[in-house]
Amino acid sequence: MNFYIVLIVISWLAWLESGFMLIPAAVGAFYREWPAVLSFVIAAAGSLLFGTLLKIITNILSRKKNVKKELYSREGAAAVAIGWIVLSLIGAVPFTLSGEIPSYVDALFETISGFTTTGGSILNDVEALSHTCLFWRSFTHWIGGMGVFVFIMAIFPLMGGYSMNLMRAESTGPSVNKLVPKAQNTAKYLYGMYLALTVVGFIVYMVLGMSPFEAATTIFGTVGTGGFGILNTSITSYSPAIQWAITIFMILSGINYTLYFCLIRRQFKEAFSIEEVKWYIGIILASTAIIALNIRGMYATTGDSIRHAAFQVGSIITTTGFSTTDFDLWPSLSKTILVLLMFCGACSGSTGGGMKISRLLIMSKTIRKELSSMIHPNEVKKIQMDGKPISHETVRSTNVYLASYFFILLLSTLLVSIDNFDFTTNFTGVVAMLNNIGPGIGGVGPTCNFANFSVFSKFIFMFDMLAGRLELFPMLIIFKLGCWKKY
Amino acid sequence: MNFYIVLIVISWLAWLESGFMLIPAAVGAFYREWPAVLSFVIAAAGSLLFGTLLKIITNILSRKKNVKKELYSREGAAAVAIGWIVLSLIGAVPFTLSGEIPSYVDALFETISGFTTTGGSILNDVEALSHTCLFWRSFTHWIGGMGVFVFIMAIFPLMGGYSMNLMRAESTGPSVNKLVPKAQNTAKYLYGMYLALTVVGFIVYMVLGMSPFEAATTIFGTVGTGGFGILNTSITSYSPAIQWAITIFMILSGINYTLYFCLIRRQFKEAFSIEEVKWYIGIILASTAIIALNIRGMYATTGDSIRHAAFQVGSIITTTGFSTTDFDLWPSLSKTILVLLMFCGACSGSTGGGMKISRLLIMSKTIRKELSSMIHPNEVKKIQMDGKPISHETVRSTNVYLASYFFILLLSTLLVSIDNFDFTTNFTGVVAMLNNIGPGIGGVGPTCNFANFSVFSKFIFMFDMLAGRLELFPMLIIFKLGCWKKY
Repeated sequence: MNFYIVLIVISWLAWLESGFMLIPAAVGAFYREWPAVLSFVIAAAGSLLFGTLLKIITNILSRKKNVKKELYSREGAAAVAIGWIVLSLIGAVPFTLSGEIPSYVDALFETISGFTTTGGSILNDVEALSHTCLFWRSFTHWIGGMGVFVFIMAIFPLMGGYSMNLMRAESTGPSVNKLVPKAQNTAKYLYGMYLALTVVGFIVYMVLGMSPFEAATTIFGTVGTGGFGILNTSITSYSPAIQWAITIFMILSGINYTLYFCLIRRQFKEAFSIEEVKWYIGIILASTAIIALNIRGMYATTGDSIRHAAFQVGSIITTTGFSTTDFDLWPSLSKTILVLLMFCGACSGSTGGGMKISRLLIMSKTIRKELSSMIHPNEVKKIQMDGKPISHETVRSTNVYLASYFFILLLSTLLVSIDNFDFTTNFTGVVAMLNNIGPGIGGVGPTCNFANFSVFSKFIFMFDMLAGRLELFPMLIIFKLGCWKKY
Repeated sequence: MNFYIVLIVISWLAWLESGFMLIPAAVGAFYREWPAVLSFVIAAAGSLLFGTLLKIITNILSRKKNVKKELYSREGAAAVAIGWIVLSLIGAVPFTLSGEIPSYVDALFETISGFTTTGGSILNDVEALSHTCLFWRSFTHWIGGMGVFVFIMAIFPLMGGYSMNLMRAESTGPSVNKLVPKAQNTAKYLYGMYLALTVVGFIVYMVLGMSPFEAATTIFGTVGTGGFGILNTSITSYSPAIQWAITIFMILSGINYTLYFCLIRRQFKEAFSIEEVKWYIGIILASTAIIALNIRGMYATTGDSIRHAAFQVGSIITTTGFSTTDFDLWPSLSKTILVLLMFCGACSGSTGGGMKISRLLIMSKTIRKELSSMIHPNEVKKIQMDGKPISHETVRSTNVYLASYFFILLLSTLLVSIDNFDFTTNFTGVVAMLNNIGPGIGGVGPTCNFANFSVFSKFIFMFDMLAGRLELFPMLIIFKLGCWKKY
């Protein structure tokens, strides 16, 4: 690994986070929550200092001869994995410093859950937190949603052609493509669209009756597909109109951003021919219909059943994790649909987690091709997506992704079972962490949280959240010794 | 599909099953259970007639010009899948005819569970069955264990070079190789070793105090890795010595038969260098040790804990499904280990089910290779097993296997959830069916059975059992329309 370039990237990251932490500090000043404000200012100063220290080290290193400034795909993956860990380690500090989450391990769990847009909590009483901490907690979703390295790419123009290796490691989906020829412009476009969606959502939530603070924190959780709320009851107490609005913005946030880019460029034909998006919408409609039918006896009106079904489906498939009702009480069919949607996830190139629909499409096309080649052994057919053939590398890496996913899922379930909770709790808990959803069913259902697990299990969950957000390989590569050797 | 050749294979199968059914009839005659005997004789006669009818049809077909007699891999896969369905449809008849399992759907479930060596039952009271039916129930394990088409290959020398396509579709593991150059001799060797293991086990069980009937039915369930017992309490009431003996024979039955073949040929170095077998033994020892420690407080002595741990581990990893204790009462860690072993399964080329250890080895090697190629992009490395490189086709088909497995697992869990049992019951029930184990945990735990599921769910389970035994592709290919077209 080229340590020089990784340290540079981490130093930028620390500076950036220092700046980000001043925003909740400003919010806190408005609410006059001085102890919390102080914690954030101290943490921001620490982060700035840490970043500067790293910069000084890299300056010393750069005086040596033969310092390589290339950032290859291995450094991209490692830098993103290490970067996200550092980001979380720093981001957790103000929670503990302010005394609002006394245990640093719990604060770290909460911060990782935030940045990875998981939304699973260890807090029994969310409402006890200050506005400052609540704001930071939701803001981490927004930072992590589109990706902190994509942000760095958008503002630091230094990396030249190599910056795509950072974006590949951080963005979602089996193959990450530039929207426009220059990587920096792609990053700018992505953040521009992300910001636009955030602002529109913020205004809509305000119009429907939310306070500015509620609207801001909720839209961060929505567009980042995170799921942290500011109330213990998540979205249950809001009006049906707000619940529908959140449903729509969650679903919009799970769509491949390429679609929005095509819309901006008025390429309507391209926009509406994306196979993955069609499946995404189809799955949402079908699941909502089946669940609404299945739960119709549990709510007063058909409208209520449809609203709760659509909300929960949108929340789970986009891996947001908000809830308007305790779906753990739903019949087995509805619960199982939700568990399946946890695996499914949203579109690639969105802020959502999970396996991504495009991966499932590639897998099912691979199966069909294999069967077809058993019937016609001499047939040579390439797997296609949106009318274009998929590269062999994408198919292979999708397959390896599934195998890695399978191993991490089973091994994590085994390790957390040491805490002796029941199988459903352990299994759906891991599924909810690895797919960055938040709640599972059973002991980690929508009305419960992860507080009761041991410190050991919490670390397993933290690994799963990071692995899920970075789509496995970056988190696995830093465990491979060869990665740390000097070249 | 070449219907001519498929019909020929099915006609042989019907004749063979007719002969097999005379064995329980003979056992029944010994016990003077005349109604049961009559049912088996009628069913055998029907099967003979059916086979002869098919033979007549194929004779008429063969008079036509241009009848192709080739059996390609597509016909191999389809013939095996259709063959196993026909085998089960016929095999279930005597259960219903004798009135001992009045519902034909239940009888079919029980028969498929037998042939696929699953061992999951719909019977609440096994002991109510006649000796005749109990014998047939266990004997189906023996027939299905090594495979009915492998048996056909061993006795019908007609298929020439094409018979390997039947064996490939029926035998277990990612790549099926001939032990000796001629396929027919390979089949003979396999059945010879299988028979030898059966006879040795039968004698050992008798020496340790079982009656001939008990020893015969139990060894069928052991070497076939089936799990049907003749007592409601499975193996619980037998002496520790017998329990240890069964443990050892189960574990021996899960070993790749190539090892025994090497031993017979005195190729000791080859025998003890099979990577898969080393992992198999290692996993058994490690799991037994952890579980024995985890459950030590639940049994009187350490010896008891080790015995129960070893028995259940051996039973689950080989996908047999016998039990000596209600492991549903064990702590979560031990139960989760058992669920993981359900996925793991035994060695390829054995009678055991599950994914097979060699597949997991190939997958984990693929992951390591992918990470390694991220670090060293120019490195060209082939995945190796037992020191030999694995073909690209084997790796690809292992990946497609995992994807298909994943889809079938999730879809089946969804479909059976309509019955509204809890998630653990549905999920581990499907896992137990798809991996041909028998019991799951929760509502399908070792003291429960599958009787309460709806007819619809039972058909899903039947599909899963067949798909699991035939390693997915043969059962999937008959659902592809292209497979039924004429060539």
